[in-house]
Amino acid sequence: MDAAEFRRRGKEMVDYVADYLENIEKRQVYPDVEPGYLRSLIPEEAPEEAESYEDVVKDIERVIMPGVTHWHSPYFYAYFPTANSFPSLLADMLCGAIGCIGFSWAASPACTELETVMLDWLGKMLKLPADFLAGTEGRGGGVIQGTASEATLIALLAARSKIIKLIQADHPDRSETDIISKLVAYSSDQAHSSVERAGLIAGVKMKKIPTDNKFSVRGDALQKVLEEDRAAGLIPFFFCATLGTTPSCAFDCITELGPICNAVEIWMHIDAAYAGSAFICPEFRPLLNGIEFADSFNFNPHKWLLVNFDCSAMWVKKRSDIIGAFKIEPLYLKHDHQESGNHSHWQIPLGRRFRSLKMWFVFRMYGLKGLQAYIRKGSNELNETLLKRINNARNIHLVPCQLAGKFVLRFAVCARTTESRHIQEAWCHISHLASELLQELPH
Amino acid sequence: MDAAEFRRRGKEMVDYVADYLENIEKRQVYPDVEPGYLRSLIPEEAPEEAESYEDVVKDIERVIMPGVTHWHSPYFYAYFPTANSFPSLLADMLCGAIGCIGFSWAASPACTELETVMLDWLGKMLKLPADFLAGTEGRGGGVIQGTASEATLIALLAARSKIIKLIQADHPDRSETDIISKLVAYSSDQAHSSVERAGLIAGVKMKKIPTDNKFSVRGDALQKVLEEDRAAGLIPFFFCATLGTTPSCAFDCITELGPICNAVEIWMHIDAAYAGSAFICPEFRPLLNGIEFADSFNFNPHKWLLVNFDCSAMWVKKRSDIIGAFKIEPLYLKHDHQESGNHSHWQIPLGRRFRSLKMWFVFRMYGLKGLQAYIRKGSNELNETLLKRINNARNIHLVPCQLAGKFVLRFAVCARTTESRHIQEAWCHISHLASELLQELPH
Repeated sequence: MDAAEFRRRGKEMVDYVADYLENIEKRQVYPDVEPGYLRSLIPEEAPEEAESYEDVVKDIERVIMPGVTHWHSPYFYAYFPTANSFPSLLADMLCGAIGCIGFSWAASPACTELETVMLDWLGKMLKLPADFLAGTEGRGGGVIQGTASEATLIALLAARSKIIKLIQADHPDRSETDIISKLVAYSSDQAHSSVERAGLIAGVKMKKIPTDNKFSVRGDALQKVLEEDRAAGLIPFFFCATLGTTPSCAFDCITELGPICNAVEIWMHIDAAYAGSAFICPEFRPLLNGIEFADSFNFNPHKWLLVNFDCSAMWVKKRSDIIGAFKIEPLYLKHDHQESGNHSHWQIPLGRRFRSLKMWFVFRMYGLKGLQAYIRKGSNELNETLLKRINNARNIHLVPCQLAGKFVLRFAVCARTTESRHIQEAWCHISHLASELLQELPH
Repeated sequence: MDAAEFRRRGKEMVDYVADYLENIEKRQVYPDVEPGYLRSLIPEEAPEEAESYEDVVKDIERVIMPGVTHWHSPYFYAYFPTANSFPSLLADMLCGAIGCIGFSWAASPACTELETVMLDWLGKMLKLPADFLAGTEGRGGGVIQGTASEATLIALLAARSKIIKLIQADHPDRSETDIISKLVAYSSDQAHSSVERAGLIAGVKMKKIPTDNKFSVRGDALQKVLEEDRAAGLIPFFFCATLGTTPSCAFDCITELGPICNAVEIWMHIDAAYAGSAFICPEFRPLLNGIEFADSFNFNPHKWLLVNFDCSAMWVKKRSDIIGAFKIEPLYLKHDHQESGNHSHWQIPLGRRFRSLKMWFVFRMYGLKGLQAYIRKGSNELNETLLKRINNARNIHLVPCQLAGKFVLRFAVCARTTESRHIQEAWCHISHLASELLQELPH
């Protein structure tokens, strides 16, 4: 395919994308296929000779679409939202064309610098304490991670590295593995599975703090566990607070938890992946009070702020804490401006795409007011055989969660295109199926 | 922006992308900007009110392009290639539009299934042993990771989890942290920095095996270290072999190393990130002999196989080894077809894009023969003040590496659009600067 053909095919693809998104409501939200459906639809091996673009494109509707769960359908209420907007799609096309690998300043200055400035822009929208901003002289700053799972892991590894150095400064004879064997990290019993997984990867104990009747971790609950663990000879070093848990969007009480962590020098990371976008609205900003006690903070613009996946925003108060944990610099990555930001020291992968372009396009084309208007939408709540009937009927799609041992139906408003009428239709449908179910029950 | 405007703007963006890539040779490969150039070119905060698309688009040439290192310029010989092709760009547009998060089969069946089948296609192109293929009944299979760094880390963590379970089966009283403190992993002294970093993250010792005069790890070198470490009470459990090191594209001798690893049950991971694409050509396939001894294998189609970043292909012989190391399944991720593939258990992030679309478009539109024709290009080699002069002249861009204490100029053929004439121009330019430099030296 030469550039001339790309011009033609690219324009056709733009129309296909627009058609898909404009008419997504007409597609069944959850597919009817059974596992293994796709293998029989395509050859067992890659073709020896090149195929035509027409052959490839006609297979999109034949092979791909029958197996797609349409995350951007207004009938999609499962899992969590994933962002999608036209400005973000345009920015991602540009990102693909530039196709730089932004692992250091020299590898593509614009990629590194726009990211730093966009995280400052977004930090200001959230009214983060100035400590978290890079500015021109700040010690903090933000970075785009692929997912919140990576942000939690990075924060945990930085905290692990920091506590080991601190203990070895006083006790140079204590080995790293001996210290790690005593370390203990904490999170809510409602925290996302990725927090437990970060503990497994880092090889440290990860304890779940029991939550109150609002599924929130309170200060006294943490305090109690800290005292027990200290008495048992363990070394508490990391607490991951959640603002907006995956099952029920519960908030840990960071105004109580923060001062406890600060007093005993435990790294407090705040995971607001799901709910964080709401903090750009003044009326929701109080939910972030206590952020001033945190060492690191993360939320996902790719969930609820119109920036396509992947774009998970993470800030730290001291960049040196993160960089110190990972910096390994071979000669082939050295350049004349080493000090000028090297985001690959902030993350697990070395390579990185030019993802800040998506933020730049979206922030400018919506403006803060447009983004706030988008956040201000409503939501809802609902039970077990019912869920199966709802999902088998294929009109809407939901997933369940477990709260204090109860099976709860989660109703998440996900698609950008969801309007009140879709939610009302869904509610009528759920009510109808619930009524049918109740009538079938023995008295 | 509504769908109608997206249709118009999307087509303009397609033309911009085509213009950029068709004329990239005319842009200076490495930018003239100094660190901090970008912050002063844009406002300090996001706009309150929405801006027009025109305002955003005119800033691409004003703000972004002056700071871009053009990785797809035929004068770009630094670092390593990053793939770029028109079919891949088109597939990525479709990926953005579908915008699904493929963390489980149910989250988007097409996303999970196409990935499994594409990794089988690619595995067959490389003539991988059948153990590495998923097929319909295989125990192995492939997955797309973001980067080779993640693939190495995942392999190391899976090996760590496996050896701990094995030891604890015989000695249920031994604690995990006690075992980890004795574990030792190995790689070439030429291995990529990400291998050392994986050891830091996993909290295990990582030793570098000395290489021979061809920068290759040989069997006797590994054997010697294994014997010393066993005698010292350590537990060797993981060896990362490199096929195509970053400094000099050296190959470890896996036909000698593999049988040693297999005999003593050390997990052998092969990192062929840089060179692996070449194995699709029969004349280069012998370089992969010994793969049959490996537990996991990885290379980057996003370097040299025309699939845009990110797309790092990883295969394992036993999926259960990888999945067992990470599986944590909260209720909200459970569905009726749990057994049908859940790639999020194979990787660090939970979320994942529909990246296999890029492979599908590229493999079909080039065909195996087209991809082999693309691989069959030449390459080159060159010294220290010279490098500064070359990079200061801004005509071409190179980075150095260190081999046995020598400062070597790496000349990597990176861009898809590089032709013999660009390489000849570069060689004339290098020869000219080298001659000038030699004449200035005192006799």
